[in-house]
Amino acid sequence: MILKFESEFNEPYVELKDFQEIKLRKQIKYVYENSPFYREKFRQAGISPEDIQTIGDLEKVPFTTKDEIRESQRIQPPLGLHAAASLEDVIRVHSSSGTTGKPTYVGITRHDWDVWTEILARVLKTHGIGRDSRIVFAMGLTFFVGSSMKDGIERLGATFIPIGTGASERVVQSIQDFQADVLFCTPSYASYLAEYVRDHFHMEPKDLGIKIMSVGGEPGGGLPEVRRKIEQDWGCKVLEAMGNADMAPVLFSECPEQDGMHFIGSDFVICEIIDPKTGKTIPIADGVEGELVYTAIDRECCPLVRFRTRDLIRVKTGECKCGRKSFRIRCIGRTDDMLIVRGVNVFPSAIKDVVSSFRPQVTGEIRILLKQKPPLVHPPLPIQVEVEDGLTESEQSALKKEIESTLRSKLIFTSDVQLVPKGTLPRFEMKAKLVQEINV
Amino acid sequence: MILKFESEFNEPYVELKDFQEIKLRKQIKYVYENSPFYREKFRQAGISPEDIQTIGDLEKVPFTTKDEIRESQRIQPPLGLHAAASLEDVIRVHSSSGTTGKPTYVGITRHDWDVWTEILARVLKTHGIGRDSRIVFAMGLTFFVGSSMKDGIERLGATFIPIGTGASERVVQSIQDFQADVLFCTPSYASYLAEYVRDHFHMEPKDLGIKIMSVGGEPGGGLPEVRRKIEQDWGCKVLEAMGNADMAPVLFSECPEQDGMHFIGSDFVICEIIDPKTGKTIPIADGVEGELVYTAIDRECCPLVRFRTRDLIRVKTGECKCGRKSFRIRCIGRTDDMLIVRGVNVFPSAIKDVVSSFRPQVTGEIRILLKQKPPLVHPPLPIQVEVEDGLTESEQSALKKEIESTLRSKLIFTSDVQLVPKGTLPRFEMKAKLVQEINV
Repeated sequence: MILKFESEFNEPYVELKDFQEIKLRKQIKYVYENSPFYREKFRQAGISPEDIQTIGDLEKVPFTTKDEIRESQRIQPPLGLHAAASLEDVIRVHSSSGTTGKPTYVGITRHDWDVWTEILARVLKTHGIGRDSRIVFAMGLTFFVGSSMKDGIERLGATFIPIGTGASERVVQSIQDFQADVLFCTPSYASYLAEYVRDHFHMEPKDLGIKIMSVGGEPGGGLPEVRRKIEQDWGCKVLEAMGNADMAPVLFSECPEQDGMHFIGSDFVICEIIDPKTGKTIPIADGVEGELVYTAIDRECCPLVRFRTRDLIRVKTGECKCGRKSFRIRCIGRTDDMLIVRGVNVFPSAIKDVVSSFRPQVTGEIRILLKQKPPLVHPPLPIQVEVEDGLTESEQSALKKEIESTLRSKLIFTSDVQLVPKGTLPRFEMKAKLVQEINV
Repeated sequence: MILKFESEFNEPYVELKDFQEIKLRKQIKYVYENSPFYREKFRQAGISPEDIQTIGDLEKVPFTTKDEIRESQRIQPPLGLHAAASLEDVIRVHSSSGTTGKPTYVGITRHDWDVWTEILARVLKTHGIGRDSRIVFAMGLTFFVGSSMKDGIERLGATFIPIGTGASERVVQSIQDFQADVLFCTPSYASYLAEYVRDHFHMEPKDLGIKIMSVGGEPGGGLPEVRRKIEQDWGCKVLEAMGNADMAPVLFSECPEQDGMHFIGSDFVICEIIDPKTGKTIPIADGVEGELVYTAIDRECCPLVRFRTRDLIRVKTGECKCGRKSFRIRCIGRTDDMLIVRGVNVFPSAIKDVVSSFRPQVTGEIRILLKQKPPLVHPPLPIQVEVEDGLTESEQSALKKEIESTLRSKLIFTSDVQLVPKGTLPRFEMKAKLVQEINV
């Protein structure tokens, strides 16, 4: 049974503080007792669980980074030294591509599942989705939001019509057959599908009757011009949602007022905002910008304390016209060089790792060419790869194919590998500049 | 709350009769009151719900066929005249390709979900899977077994590691990282993956430690030579499971004794076996062969009475070495011409329908070339398509691509369209013979 604060997303953030701090103290004790990673982190920082009584006390705890999670899983596979539940109690494991070719894993227990499902049902409610809504789902169900979203939709009692990706004909057919009023997809698919409807069904997408387009998995829904185009095509409201692979599939959700994404998980996660350069906490207030930092306060497996998300956001506070008082955000970028290709997180360093495994045929030097503003990238992603001298044309052609197929298989995105002669790509002494923006 | 018979799959089928008949009477009354399709069917057969008191009485009810379901959904979209629940109460809808390009839909209510999840948890228990099992799932989650199986695995408390299709590297990596002991996939993927492991990981698949390979979605797991090869490659037991898109994702499951698939859903579904030619009921007894006919006895939405599955099976009775007393089956074929391509049901008539939509460029005549014994087919499926005279080479090339892409999009399988001149393909006056076996 999960302990939740039913009306949490109708309250201003500060009023939840007492409730959050009760859970925080319990969670810190649990994490200290069950996670060797955090016990060591606390020891090194010279603090004990008793030192963390309030949200303000969290500043005493050093951040947790994605690199640490990866290292923690390398030392103690598969879930890492930070995991605090036994594999026996884990009912599901999601994997993400991580910053190297090796995936990182997130496990959830039955309790964690219950929390996620509760949050996901709230995401939908915030969108204005109810029991009568008919939702066509045109994202991958393997994608970790997918199978979690299924449970959230079913808990809410809406009608879930899963179609997945690569079946546009069926997406449109199902929308028509069920007079579906909600479509879940990535923003880039929403644009693609509008053209598909015109070309293949000889009708205007807005005549399909979609009222809410819930977009996620990649940025775009927050960009005014992208949003305006989708809304014009479809005659609908575009609503954004956002989560984090290591904390919860979704944690922020936009209401029909479209004035930013409401934080809807404050009984399960504490948000802090920090200056990404100094690491200093910035009080949550209207207009502040910074990096989101999450602390789980109700998590059994893979609990994280002060996890740096690398998501750069802008805050909006004050009561929303919808009546909700929780703070809202827009995502304005990333503080690292992560790219997002069709909803999949891809790190340039991971691409370099994979390409380097083709030594001695390649030198290991690469350059990623971006035609769009990062982090959003449309596949295939052009990647220049330096090859050693002496390869025949047919060896080069086979090598190109093999690298592309390995990238697809290890990092789950489509690339267009362009082989270039040894010595062509610029070298950097300190930090490799792997990404170059062209025609942006 | 579902009414279930906990130990049902440990009892001989006949001893459950009383329990089944209580549920049957209730269900027949429900169906009669809520489904216009069945009210009309009963009227035409001159029977009333009171005439159906025992399983034996079921013979009075005419069969329900897939064609009727399609027609029922055409008359009253989207779920059909046979549906007996309101769309408001439907929490999930699955679609199958059906025998024409238009999908047929199956909706489930929260109660139906509970029944399916219960059955799926039993399928796993029958396999010998428990809370400590670590299951890598390498089938599509959009595939309707997938998202249902997720719930069954989570109800059982095993660890579910969903990977999906098209990511072999990650499948192998996850098996290694979690020391997974169970792999879910299609039998053809099991063979493909064995070679993949040898080529890319330079190791023998059996060294990965998989103990149970649960195969389904296509026949093959029941063929001794296919099974032997997979078991040799992987050093595991291959266990089959089988269901039906219109009744439940899975209803039969093999135990580690590998002596046929146990029927594990007798508190939710009544099985009859009929002679597919005469339609006469054949009593369930050791060694009998016939077509499976299902009657739901605990279903709210899309309840079916005497549904002809077209699955040809052979029965085995008597106590299994595992202790279970329920009857067991092997699937030995189909009584229609349905093909199965990578787990997707494909009807030759549906292919003809889709191709015909390209008139006047095509004549509408097609021939499907099979290199394997049906119903199992490996993609791409070669299809000869007759074209009208006068198309240029580039028009032909564009036409081929367009037909292949439309087949992919409408029927979800990959084809290799071979255009042939008008008048090349044999004509049949009565019933088109669309399929030709070559090199079988």
